[in-house]
This record gives sequence, C-alpha cells and structure tokens, in this order.
Amino acid sequence: MEPEWEERGRRVLEACRRAGVKLALAEASTGGLIAACLTDIPGASAVVERGFIPYSNEAKTELLDVPVALMVAHGAVSEEVARALAEGALAHSHADVALAETGIAGPTGGSAAKPVGLVHLVVSRRGGATTCERHVFSGDRASIRRAAAARGLELLLSHLEGG
Amino acid sequence: MEPEWEERGRRVLEACRRAGVKLALAEASTGGLIAACLTDIPGASAVVERGFIPYSNEAKTELLDVPVALMVAHGAVSEEVARALAEGALAHSHADVALAETGIAGPTGGSAAKPVGLVHLVVSRRGGATTCERHVFSGDRASIRRAAAARGLELLLSHLEGG
Repeated sequence: MEPEWEERGRRVLEACRRAGVKLALAEASTGGLIAACLTDIPGASAVVERGFIPYSNEAKTELLDVPVALMVAHGAVSEEVARALAEGALAHSHADVALAETGIAGPTGGSAAKPVGLVHLVVSRRGGATTCERHVFSGDRASIRRAAAARGLELLLSHLEGG
Repeated sequence: MEPEWEERGRRVLEACRRAGVKLALAEASTGGLIAACLTDIPGASAVVERGFIPYSNEAKTELLDVPVALMVAHGAVSEEVARALAEGALAHSHADVALAETGIAGPTGGSAAKPVGLVHLVVSRRGGATTCERHVFSGDRASIRRAAAARGLELLLSHLEGG
C-alpha cells in the first residue's frame, strides 16, 4: 500500500479507537477498496467489525434492506440509496459508525444526469448524525475508485473528529 | 493497480464469463482485497455478484451462518471455517462460485500450531466441486494479505478452467 493510503487508514483507525467506535462498510462501486485499505493496518480487527460489497442491486436489497422502490425512483447511484446502504450496514452489524458508497466507476453506465465519476458517500452514526457528500471525480475507472475511497476515509475522519 | 494484479483480475473475470458463472467473495483476513482487485476491472459487474467481509467472528456467524461451535472446535482460521464461509457465501447470494478466505495476517495472533501467515482458501461451486488450500505465507502483514489474495485469484482460475 502506498504511504499516503497507509497514513489515511491509520488515522481513521486511531480516530475510531479514540471515539470508542467500531466500523461497518458498505461499498458498491469501490468494491472493497476502503475495507482493504483499513484492514491492511495492524490492529484493524479492533475497529473494523464487518463489510458488505453489495455489487448487484439484489445484493443491496437482500443484504442491506435497500427498498427496490427507492432504487427504481432514484437509481442505485443516488444519495437516497447511499443513505439506505449506511442505515442497512448499521442495522446488519454491531458497528457504531457506517460508511456507505455508491458510484459510477465507468467506463460505461454514465448519463448526462449521472456521469461516470458520480459518487455518493454517507457516514452515519448509530442514533446520531449522518453526513452525505456528492462528488463527480474525473479520470479512468481506477482513478475514480481511488478518489472515492480516499474521500470516504477523509469523510469518516472528519465525522469522527467533529462528532 | 499493479499490472500483474490487473492481469490476474482480468483472467478471472474472463474465465467466469466463459464459464457463465457469477462470483461471490467471503474475505476474512484479506478484508476486501480480492473484491477490490476484481472490481477494478471494467465489466466486473457482469461477474461479481456480491462480497462479504466477515471480519469479526459474529459477522462470520450472522452473515454467513458459520456455526459458533465450528469456530470453537477448529478456530476461525481453519479449513472447516473456510469451507463454511464458502457455503455461506453461496447460500446468501445468487453466485454460482464462491471464493472464501480466512487467515492470520499478523503481526499478532499467531501460535505454534497456527503461525502468522497461515491462510485457508476455498473455492466452491454451487452443486459442484470444492477445492481447499492451506498456505503459510511469509513476510509482513501486507505481504501475507497480498500473497493470500493473489493465490485466491489463481485458485479461482484453476477451479474455473479445470471444472
């Protein structure tokens, strides 16, 4: 892992330890990249409780209770679905904080309204605050996924340090 | 992603497409590394159905039905639990083939009988064959995880091409 990723991962784990919280992850388009980064750090098992990679729409519904109607109404890549993924990750884990991501990594699947690079990130604390962000990252599939994962870790950090 | 990882991921996706199968992943100590590698490849969504990161023992039981008694009897890092993770991934997905992994990435958690670097990998096909492997990889945490992920992809490939 590159040093900047290791540093991001370490800071998130340390912030979780300080806050006394455990983490759950629900990664759609990043597909495990955020969990892989965090679990590369020694001691991750004290913080990372579990992760979900709800790649298909069926998985979003079956694993994390995302209503089919919500995906039909807003699309799988939407703030509404990202919020539902975060809520589902809390409901189906013992974690205190969940980070959820859904995006269009490309190269296909984009549209004028939802371009390749569109990513929704949500951090939600059990019984507490929820933070949502929308980004449109540029570059190829790998760059978009890395940008989404990096921003996800930073959002988690600012949520933990601000909360 | 380094070129050799990209090549491994591409070959697995291509073998799945040729075999007409969808994949589920259950990654304990690799923590999403295998899924992240596969989903970095364009077109992954046609093959990768969902992934599980059952990092805690509760997650292994709650997400993938690994019996507590099995973990007590054999330990979470055992062939028995790796097999149960693979079976659980098939039972809780629409995938045709599951790859499961459980290991001790270190630097702590090892013993004489189960050293740091011990990794069990299982590939199981719905209604078909199951292949199990036990490895003891050397190096630091990151090297062990990468070796486990790389070998997992190779095992999947040989299972698909042999089956």
